[in-house]
Amino acid sequence: MTARPIRAIVYGVGAMGSIMARLLLEKGVEIVGAVARSPGKVGRDLGDVAELGRATGVVVEADARRALSTGDDVALVSVSSYLSVMRDHFLLCLEHGCNVITIEEESLWPWSTARELAEELDRAGRAHNASLVASGAQDVFWLNLVSCLMGAAHRVDTVEGRCSWNADDYGPEVARHVRVGDTPEEFDSYVAEHGWPDFVVRATLEALAADVELTPSSVTPSVRPVLAQTDRWSRALGRPISAGCVVGVVDGVTLATREGPTLSFEMAGRLYEEGDTDMNEWVVRGHPSELHLRNDRVPTRLITCTSVVNRIPDVINAEPGFLTLDRLPRLRYRHFPLHHYLARPGGP
Amino acid sequence: MTARPIRAIVYGVGAMGSIMARLLLEKGVEIVGAVARSPGKVGRDLGDVAELGRATGVVVEADARRALSTGDDVALVSVSSYLSVMRDHFLLCLEHGCNVITIEEESLWPWSTARELAEELDRAGRAHNASLVASGAQDVFWLNLVSCLMGAAHRVDTVEGRCSWNADDYGPEVARHVRVGDTPEEFDSYVAEHGWPDFVVRATLEALAADVELTPSSVTPSVRPVLAQTDRWSRALGRPISAGCVVGVVDGVTLATREGPTLSFEMAGRLYEEGDTDMNEWVVRGHPSELHLRNDRVPTRLITCTSVVNRIPDVINAEPGFLTLDRLPRLRYRHFPLHHYLARPGGP
Repeated sequence: MTARPIRAIVYGVGAMGSIMARLLLEKGVEIVGAVARSPGKVGRDLGDVAELGRATGVVVEADARRALSTGDDVALVSVSSYLSVMRDHFLLCLEHGCNVITIEEESLWPWSTARELAEELDRAGRAHNASLVASGAQDVFWLNLVSCLMGAAHRVDTVEGRCSWNADDYGPEVARHVRVGDTPEEFDSYVAEHGWPDFVVRATLEALAADVELTPSSVTPSVRPVLAQTDRWSRALGRPISAGCVVGVVDGVTLATREGPTLSFEMAGRLYEEGDTDMNEWVVRGHPSELHLRNDRVPTRLITCTSVVNRIPDVINAEPGFLTLDRLPRLRYRHFPLHHYLARPGGP
Repeated sequence: MTARPIRAIVYGVGAMGSIMARLLLEKGVEIVGAVARSPGKVGRDLGDVAELGRATGVVVEADARRALSTGDDVALVSVSSYLSVMRDHFLLCLEHGCNVITIEEESLWPWSTARELAEELDRAGRAHNASLVASGAQDVFWLNLVSCLMGAAHRVDTVEGRCSWNADDYGPEVARHVRVGDTPEEFDSYVAEHGWPDFVVRATLEALAADVELTPSSVTPSVRPVLAQTDRWSRALGRPISAGCVVGVVDGVTLATREGPTLSFEMAGRLYEEGDTDMNEWVVRGHPSELHLRNDRVPTRLITCTSVVNRIPDVINAEPGFLTLDRLPRLRYRHFPLHHYLARPGGP
């Protein structure tokens, strides 16, 4: 166990970064830098921007180079959802020898959809003795719990997952990403023109397949919009959404594997109505004929952050490079200050 | 990866051992010995005793010494529920350099209730380069899934579990163990005289606490009988149970820890009525305020066996000694013949 607290950078001080900042301080982590783009945040104390109820002495910087310094242990990076956008941010951290944990979804399994970028980042991590890992809600609820449930199976024929999350909970970037506010025609022409991006669903299934050494043979995506039944208000966008317009998507992927088992996952990200809660449901079919897992009332937004923070010791302890979750220990609850969980230098 | 199949001993050919024998053969494991006590089983082919639909060439032995030989990789031991009874069986396997996986419940966490025996077995395992591990339904459903769910918590105040299982599903030994057939007076006087044994509930919570480095400060058990509402039939005992007599127990433990979190688990083991199914439900309270996990229609009897079989590579790969599940990797689905998952000799 190291004597000194872990030194962390909060890289992205939006809805998620602000929660993470609070959790970090409560887990004995020293926040040594913060990065944000918005002119309304830059130059202010992180405690003020993240509404921590006290000053931290850490000034939010626009230029990450001013926030990073030698000896930083880890950067929690919550900026965007695609590796192409994130590459420069990750690279900068890694080149400073700073480990990265991100909620950027493609990084959950980057080897299919962004292999070249992933290889570049993997090399950078190895060169500078730093690792890069994606965590978030998917870590516990879509990967580790599901893989663990599969551990009770003698033969898996299919794995079927369903989940829902509130597209109003993650700020405007995410709400726009799932096309909240589009008319159905805008949605259709967007999809016709751009296709539908390989969001976290595909990456989740590919990570799950890799975790049990299965090889994807085909990936079949599907996407359909969820339309507002009545006029709605989007908190994330701060504007009304008219009845008939898009309030989210159901994003599905079916992954066939060379070895036989088929994995599918359908994720509904939409503006919730009164009484809706996040849920997560998985069924593994084969022998036994059915294994069931259900999580109700999942506080997705919060556990996205708790999972990232609980992952910090694993990522610092890990070998360098771009690592996926199948290569880390299962995520554990951290009762003690996070530096308690660091491997002793030179230890076993 | 070793080139040769894993060599296994089926040690105990009751309800569970018979299922395991089938799973082993389907996973490319070579069964090289079988042990049973019943005169009705001894001397017969394992395939006949376990109803495998074919002869195996393995004769069921009464004397385990005749079944064990040098080079056996693992014995799957399903004989009794207490370490004191099992000591000689485990010791014999370990002294042959044969790893052991057992569904004997106390071994899930033997360090409180049977420390001296556990230390003796730990020494024997280390001396003969063999490991001893308890698995079963508790591996996935009461430990790994729960610990994984806790991995999404920032602060745990309480963990509360509930499960049910069919006391008719595990043969007469287990049915008698939960006092099926007692009158309420017999049950009360049994408990008054003998106390209630530390069954798997306590061991589960102690293993769970150990998994997250919490230290038990007090253990509060509770037990109450479940009484038959009408005349019933016990398959396991092969006899009727009169209305008003015991058809099972609700066995509970609350474990307080020095660090603060409290863990509790209540297990209902009783003869099921038409339509009952096994379930498993856990709530973690703290921050987030609640995390929920539920498994419905759990095929407990089968997944007791699938979990043991899927654990085989982990136990062969493990360091020697008496190991608890917190010291093994999380259980994974095994799509390939089990020897595929063995660590390469001399490999990383």
